[in-house]
Amino acid sequence: MIEIIECIPNFSTSDPKVVELILNEIKRTENAFLLDYTFDDYYNRLVVSFVGNKESTLKAVLNAAFKAVKLIDMRKHKGQHPRLGAVDVVPFIPIKNVSMDGCIELAGKFGGALAEKCGVPVYLYGEAATKPERKDLDWIRRGEYEKLAEMIVKPERKPDFGPAKAHPAAGATTTGARKVMAGFNVNLGTADLKIAKKIAKALHAKKGGFSNVKAMAASIPEKKITQIGMSITNFEETPLHRVFELLKVEAARYNVPIVGSEFCGMAPLKALIDIAAYYVKIDNLTEDRVLEMAVQNAIEKGESKSNR
Amino acid sequence: MIEIIECIPNFSTSDPKVVELILNEIKRTENAFLLDYTFDDYYNRLVVSFVGNKESTLKAVLNAAFKAVKLIDMRKHKGQHPRLGAVDVVPFIPIKNVSMDGCIELAGKFGGALAEKCGVPVYLYGEAATKPERKDLDWIRRGEYEKLAEMIVKPERKPDFGPAKAHPAAGATTTGARKVMAGFNVNLGTADLKIAKKIAKALHAKKGGFSNVKAMAASIPEKKITQIGMSITNFEETPLHRVFELLKVEAARYNVPIVGSEFCGMAPLKALIDIAAYYVKIDNLTEDRVLEMAVQNAIEKGESKSNR
Repeated sequence: MIEIIECIPNFSTSDPKVVELILNEIKRTENAFLLDYTFDDYYNRLVVSFVGNKESTLKAVLNAAFKAVKLIDMRKHKGQHPRLGAVDVVPFIPIKNVSMDGCIELAGKFGGALAEKCGVPVYLYGEAATKPERKDLDWIRRGEYEKLAEMIVKPERKPDFGPAKAHPAAGATTTGARKVMAGFNVNLGTADLKIAKKIAKALHAKKGGFSNVKAMAASIPEKKITQIGMSITNFEETPLHRVFELLKVEAARYNVPIVGSEFCGMAPLKALIDIAAYYVKIDNLTEDRVLEMAVQNAIEKGESKSNR
Repeated sequence: MIEIIECIPNFSTSDPKVVELILNEIKRTENAFLLDYTFDDYYNRLVVSFVGNKESTLKAVLNAAFKAVKLIDMRKHKGQHPRLGAVDVVPFIPIKNVSMDGCIELAGKFGGALAEKCGVPVYLYGEAATKPERKDLDWIRRGEYEKLAEMIVKPERKPDFGPAKAHPAAGATTTGARKVMAGFNVNLGTADLKIAKKIAKALHAKKGGFSNVKAMAASIPEKKITQIGMSITNFEETPLHRVFELLKVEAARYNVPIVGSEFCGMAPLKALIDIAAYYVKIDNLTEDRVLEMAVQNAIEKGESKSNR
C-alpha cells in the first residue's frame, strides 16, 4: 500500500531564477514527484503541486521552504494575491492510503521545523487549525504581510509555532491539511466587470452563495472577456454541475453567454464523474469503475500480493 | 514503461462451476490481473475482463480458453447472445505503452495456438481482420453455432487458423484487436418495447444512426421499463453526449422520460472527460490533467528514473 500525499506550497515569488531553485529542492528529493507549477507576475506567486509519501513530502517541502526563506524578501514584494509571507501557505492533502489525521500531523511537523530552523512564525489552518476561526485561511491572512507586525502581537493572532514576531524578510507562514479542492474558472462573453462581479457574488459563500464556494470576478482584457474564478472546497457537497447551472442562470439574467471553462490546476476524478453522471443521468458510477483506475488498482493489488 | 493490454474473453457458459474454473486460470497467472467478470442465464455467457503485459495476457487467456474448450459443450448450449463457440470472442485492447499492432500480433498468436492445441477453427476480426468484411464481428458470427458446419465450408468463411470444420463441442472462436469501447445503457420510463425499438433504431449504425453505435432495445420487466443497450466502438468520433442528446430528442418524440443510465463494464476516462467537457464547456481537459492520472504518471516516471 503506497501512501500518497499531495502538497501544494505557495511561495511569494515570480522570479524565474528563484522559482527554479525552489523547484530543484523538490525534484532532487527521492520519492517526491513534481506534478505541476505555475507562477505569474500579476499575482507574483509560485504555486507548486507535488506528491510523495509522508517522509519524502515533508523533506521536499521543508527544503523548498528553507530555500524560499533564504531567497525571498517580502519587504520588496508586490502582488495582487493576499499573502503573509515568503512561504505563504502549505497545505497537505490526503490522496491515497493516508488519513486526514496523517496530513494534520505532517502540517504540525512542517510548521514546527520551519519555526525552529528559520524563526518564521507559523499558523495552522484548515483541518489542522487549533481554533475554529483559524480554519479559514482568509481570517489568518487578514492584514497581509504589511500589517503582520501589528496583527501578530494580538493574543488571538498568536502563532502556533515560533515567535509572535514577523520574520523581517519572510513574514509568516500558514500550513495545514485539507481535502482535495476543485479550482474552476468560467469565462463570460462580456468585458463588463460589473456584471461578472454580480455573478461571482451570487455564488460566493460569504455573500449568500454556495457554502463551499469562493468566487471572484476578473478581467481578461486581451480577450475582451471576464472570468469567474472559483475554488470549491468540498465538491462532493457542492457539485460542480450545480454551481455551473446556477452560474448559467445568473449569466442569462444579463444576457451574457458562457464562452468556456477550465479547471485551474488538476481536475479531481470524482468531480468529473459527478458532472458526467448528472448530465447523462448515470446512477452508480464510482471511481473504481473507471477503466484506468481499475487497471491501476488491479496491478497494485497484484504487486502487493507478490511482495508478501 | 509497463505495457498494459486488456483482454475481454467471452465464453458461452453461465454455469458457476465452469465460471470459477475458467477464472482460476486467469487468477493463477503471474502478472495477469482480473478486473471484472459478469455472467447471466439469459445470455448464458461469461464476459471476463483482465489486464496484463503481452506475455501474461497471452498465457492467461490461452489457459482459460483450453479450460473452456474442455468444459463447455455447445451442442447443449442455449442463450440469447449471438455466438459461434465455447470461447466465442477474444479481443485484445491496447491500454498503455503498447500499440494496436502489438495487440494484432497477440490475437494471431492466440488464434494460432488455440487452433493447433485444440483443433478449434479461429477467425480474426476487428483491427486484426485479414479481409475487410471480417472487421465486423456480426458478419463472422452470422448463422451462429447452429449453422457453423454449413457456413464454414464456404470459401469466404474459411477460418484464419485451424481446420475449415466446426469443432463439435467448441464450435469456432473469433479473436482480434480493437480500441477501448464504451458500453452504455439508458433506461426509458416506459414498458413499451415497440417505442424502445424505434429509439434504438434511430441510433443504430446499420439503420442510419451514428456510424460507431450499435443499439438494441430490451425489456426489464421487473422494473416495468425498457432499456437501450449500446456499444460505442469509437467514442472519440461519436462522443457519448451526442448519442445521449439524440436519444433524449427521440424519446421526447414519444413523451418517454429517461430514468437513468449506466456504463456496461468499465467507463473509459476519456469518455467521461468528453461528457463533462461538453456540458460545462471545458476547453482543454486532457487525461494527464486529471489529478489521479497525474499522480500515477509522476510516480511511474520517478520509478523508471530510479530504475535506470
